Amino acid sequence: MTSHPAIHVRLGPRSYPILLGEGILTDSLIKHPLLSAQTRRAFVITDSRIKTVAGRIASRLGRRCVGLSVLRGGESTKCLATLSSLYSSAARARLDRHSVVIAVGGGVIGDVAGFFAATWLRGIAIVHVPTTLVAQVDSAIGGKTGVNLTNGKNLVGAFHQPSLVVVDPTTLRTLPDREFRSGLAEVIKYGVIADAVLFEHLEHHLEKILRRDPAELSWVIRRCCTIKARVISRDEHETNGLRAILNFGHTMGHAIETAARYTLLHGEAIALGLLAATRLSQKMYGLSTFSAHRIFDLIQRAGLPTRLKHNLSFPVILAVMKLDKKVVDGRIRFVLAHRIGSVHTGVSIPPHLIREAFDELKIIRNSSHRANRVTERKTRHGS
Amino acid sequence: MTSHPAIHVRLGPRSYPILLGEGILTDSLIKHPLLSAQTRRAFVITDSRIKTVAGRIASRLGRRCVGLSVLRGGESTKCLATLSSLYSSAARARLDRHSVVIAVGGGVIGDVAGFFAATWLRGIAIVHVPTTLVAQVDSAIGGKTGVNLTNGKNLVGAFHQPSLVVVDPTTLRTLPDREFRSGLAEVIKYGVIADAVLFEHLEHHLEKILRRDPAELSWVIRRCCTIKARVISRDEHETNGLRAILNFGHTMGHAIETAARYTLLHGEAIALGLLAATRLSQKMYGLSTFSAHRIFDLIQRAGLPTRLKHNLSFPVILAVMKLDKKVVDGRIRFVLAHRIGSVHTGVSIPPHLIREAFDELKIIRNSSHRANRVTERKTRHGS
Repeated sequence: MTSHPAIHVRLGPRSYPILLGEGILTDSLIKHPLLSAQTRRAFVITDSRIKTVAGRIASRLGRRCVGLSVLRGGESTKCLATLSSLYSSAARARLDRHSVVIAVGGGVIGDVAGFFAATWLRGIAIVHVPTTLVAQVDSAIGGKTGVNLTNGKNLVGAFHQPSLVVVDPTTLRTLPDREFRSGLAEVIKYGVIADAVLFEHLEHHLEKILRRDPAELSWVIRRCCTIKARVISRDEHETNGLRAILNFGHTMGHAIETAARYTLLHGEAIALGLLAATRLSQKMYGLSTFSAHRIFDLIQRAGLPTRLKHNLSFPVILAVMKLDKKVVDGRIRFVLAHRIGSVHTGVSIPPHLIREAFDELKIIRNSSHRANRVTERKTRHGS
Repeated sequence: MTSHPAIHVRLGPRSYPILLGEGILTDSLIKHPLLSAQTRRAFVITDSRIKTVAGRIASRLGRRCVGLSVLRGGESTKCLATLSSLYSSAARARLDRHSVVIAVGGGVIGDVAGFFAATWLRGIAIVHVPTTLVAQVDSAIGGKTGVNLTNGKNLVGAFHQPSLVVVDPTTLRTLPDREFRSGLAEVIKYGVIADAVLFEHLEHHLEKILRRDPAELSWVIRRCCTIKARVISRDEHETNGLRAILNFGHTMGHAIETAARYTLLHGEAIALGLLAATRLSQKMYGLSTFSAHRIFDLIQRAGLPTRLKHNLSFPVILAVMKLDKKVVDGRIRFVLAHRIGSVHTGVSIPPHLIREAFDELKIIRNSSHRANRVTERKTRHGS
């Protein structure tokens, strides 16, 4: 095991480290000062599909583990009813203000466990142990927690920073292929919004990443976590606009995810959202056709959807978008890219252009001459 | 209308004013910058018993008021089911991040509306318009929000500071007598924990206060709000021990309130909690018998219960106390007074003494020779 420097989210008294490395999980968790005291009470929340990992942690915690809640996986678990049952379990386990919640799982587990920790006794500590790619690069970092209503995604929630995040890429080995690819949508997003080097790296090494080469995965995850930690450190509560760059592809992506009633995975819906945002970026911000093709290609090569096959109507999508948290005074705002690696936030778009971008998602497009274009970029484009 | 200087809760970016004065309510609310913009969307939450006040505010807001939710009064309203229905109403009313919740009512309305505002879209602004004495002197200030579980009071909640508090003592005119007296328990508490002058003032002017003399009420409420604002400004999240002084009488008071299934009003249960804490203060902190009698007398003269008539067993009370948020590592901690006007926090008490103090609440005690003792104090005691 090589040395793994921590990545730090710097938020004054709410600062915390992201520990990242292959095989580091149980040891770095058990030995952390937050959990080392024998009187500490820990409450583990996990997904039935990853319960062996959670079980190993619980068994190493021994008597410190006063509860293990195994939830059904899937977005439908992120609801008020799940919270209600967690509150009852917490009361039975007598979780006090110094107790620690440990969330072991993907984005759903992290979001619901995070909101539970934010609101139990007005807030107790939580450690995130993300076990999906999307959680490792995105949702476990930054303190956004919440549950869905039938009306929309994450409408109920709180900002509640974790006290520690432990990312062990070896937990991805057993992740179903569809979920792994779904996580790549967020990885690609980081490239577009902030890191042209990462984007190019993905273009060159996608096959190794898809084979889940450990060194390759660690490099990519670290790169993404570093971007996210930097953004959160500068704009914890999405107040100065910086954090909003993370919403690239999410305005329409979330609406599609909700309107399709979660039959698409988060990353699959986001992939479609990325394509819509890319199209709008071309029309409104002068993103080059070449860059747009590169984004399309990468999404397609990652095995993510490039076409919306669901029979969703634009008025429905528009209505859901208007319920999004990013909407203020009825205006739907987008994050748009002017080149790969750089975006603008808060862009208000006329409804007819949003409709066009949505309608295009239903058309079959082909990625042709990808290899040629990548070569061409080397000589002609800087983006 | 005389000039009414605002009281300020100073919390950096989360600072806010408490506006306090007779007859100031509607104007100071409508004209406040938070609500003056015509595009602002306001959502009013109120109690069916005070809905005329809320209705007046809603009608003055005109089109800015996008929803008015009238809840049933009483502690049973502070539950997850109420929240769930508020969330649905908020989705229908399309409350966005810049919308404002206006809570018009007592502690129950403030707590549940506060938690709703804290968690809708991860937190939107709230204005508190407290209309009961307990809410005006206590619960509307300080950002504690929450709902109850069957297992205990306020187990689920969040810290969420209001953006503005408007206290108009004229709203107390129609408050039922039992509720008004219930509020006096918190007023007496302020005297014991931090303000011997207030305590003595209450002893001398209780009859005028009970007649709800407007000038008298304004003076008392302002004194209490000033103490609370000072405490909150120095210890927002109850981390350095200062805020914990506000829990004097609440350790056992909350447990009695919960165990009696809310058949006692909050202040009535707190009155019993104050008596138990007073007894423990005598035994553990050398509070004089004389001071203890003064506290007993004032509670009795305010028409608050001095005897627990419910058939509650100590093991039940102990079990409920152990679920309290103030419990850490299983230790039940009390706030105790060593004289009127000064308290210690975080005092761990052996269970047999807690039991004794609880058992004494069941015994009929008489307040004798009160007038004599007050005279005696003037010459012999400084407390």
